[in-house]
Amino acid sequence: MKNILIDHFSKFAVLKDVEIIALKESMVIKHFPKGGSIIKEGQHNVDTFFVLEGLVRQYKLKDDEEITTNFFTIGQWIIALTSFAESAIAADYLVCVEDTTVVVGNEQRAQELFKKFPRFETISRAVMETVFAEQQKKMEAYLTDTPEQRYRNLLMHNPTIVQQVPQYHIASYIGVKPESLSRIRKRIASNG
Amino acid sequence: MKNILIDHFSKFAVLKDVEIIALKESMVIKHFPKGGSIIKEGQHNVDTFFVLEGLVRQYKLKDDEEITTNFFTIGQWIIALTSFAESAIAADYLVCVEDTTVVVGNEQRAQELFKKFPRFETISRAVMETVFAEQQKKMEAYLTDTPEQRYRNLLMHNPTIVQQVPQYHIASYIGVKPESLSRIRKRIASNG
Repeated sequence: MKNILIDHFSKFAVLKDVEIIALKESMVIKHFPKGGSIIKEGQHNVDTFFVLEGLVRQYKLKDDEEITTNFFTIGQWIIALTSFAESAIAADYLVCVEDTTVVVGNEQRAQELFKKFPRFETISRAVMETVFAEQQKKMEAYLTDTPEQRYRNLLMHNPTIVQQVPQYHIASYIGVKPESLSRIRKRIASNG
Repeated sequence: MKNILIDHFSKFAVLKDVEIIALKESMVIKHFPKGGSIIKEGQHNVDTFFVLEGLVRQYKLKDDEEITTNFFTIGQWIIALTSFAESAIAADYLVCVEDTTVVVGNEQRAQELFKKFPRFETISRAVMETVFAEQQKKMEAYLTDTPEQRYRNLLMHNPTIVQQVPQYHIASYIGVKPESLSRIRKRIASNG
């Protein structure tokens, strides 16, 4: 399963065997059951996560209501913003929708690897840039798309999320009440 | 004026004189008049920009309507997502609200600097992480805040933007019609 991350890094540079071995040895793997929490609100977090299997939902609490802000599936990075902010207090929850396995990345272990293999820092910067670009695209889509477009995008690019996650979380994610999502789904079912 | 960028980098590491000189020599400065375009839609862009003076508005076109997605002021990075995507076609416009001066960063020049001063790559990664964290915060605020909260945040943190930018761009930025922004402003004026 570790190879999923090796394959991911290999998109940015052709890795040597010695580098692959060092990467695999440095990987800390964590398993979480369905419903398990990777980060709870208020929990100090300085780690990043790379999803090897499963599905993770990120949400915030506002007036005791869960607002779903992100889903993360196989091959995606979960980079908790607050790990880079001055106060590393998570304002987010990360909860597993399915049994989930992640690689836990952390700055100290990364620095040790960079010392031995300086070009890992280049790869790490490229990874960060890619995740950043995806984040910006998502932000822009959120500013310009209607909730129906957002739902259609989710159906198109992540149909399994729509199947695995309760509808009220999907509604929250696209920014509407559950009743509105029902109307959107009916419209799509009748118009295609 | 170049010192604004030097000061910015110095937040991440204490720079040696030789490094400061190399950085200053590598900086490409561009001036744009009020109303000038840094990126036009459809324009190939692989550069990043650091604002030394002025104010830049980013927007997208949707059904011929401008949707304001960002403002950038002194000391801020403008990192165009598409520069990292496979097709580097900008889907955004960047237009100067005031006379504006930027440092133009570009990957090739960055790579040359990294070769001479490897720790610039570490600084660059730290900068990217900080900008990424700010972006994520903004995204989360957008998902959880009401338009009125967004307007209050803008008033609190960037009052000059509210003064310098026409109200209909501000309305677009907080995600409401201009009439709704007028109501929000009246409410704030009467309630404080």
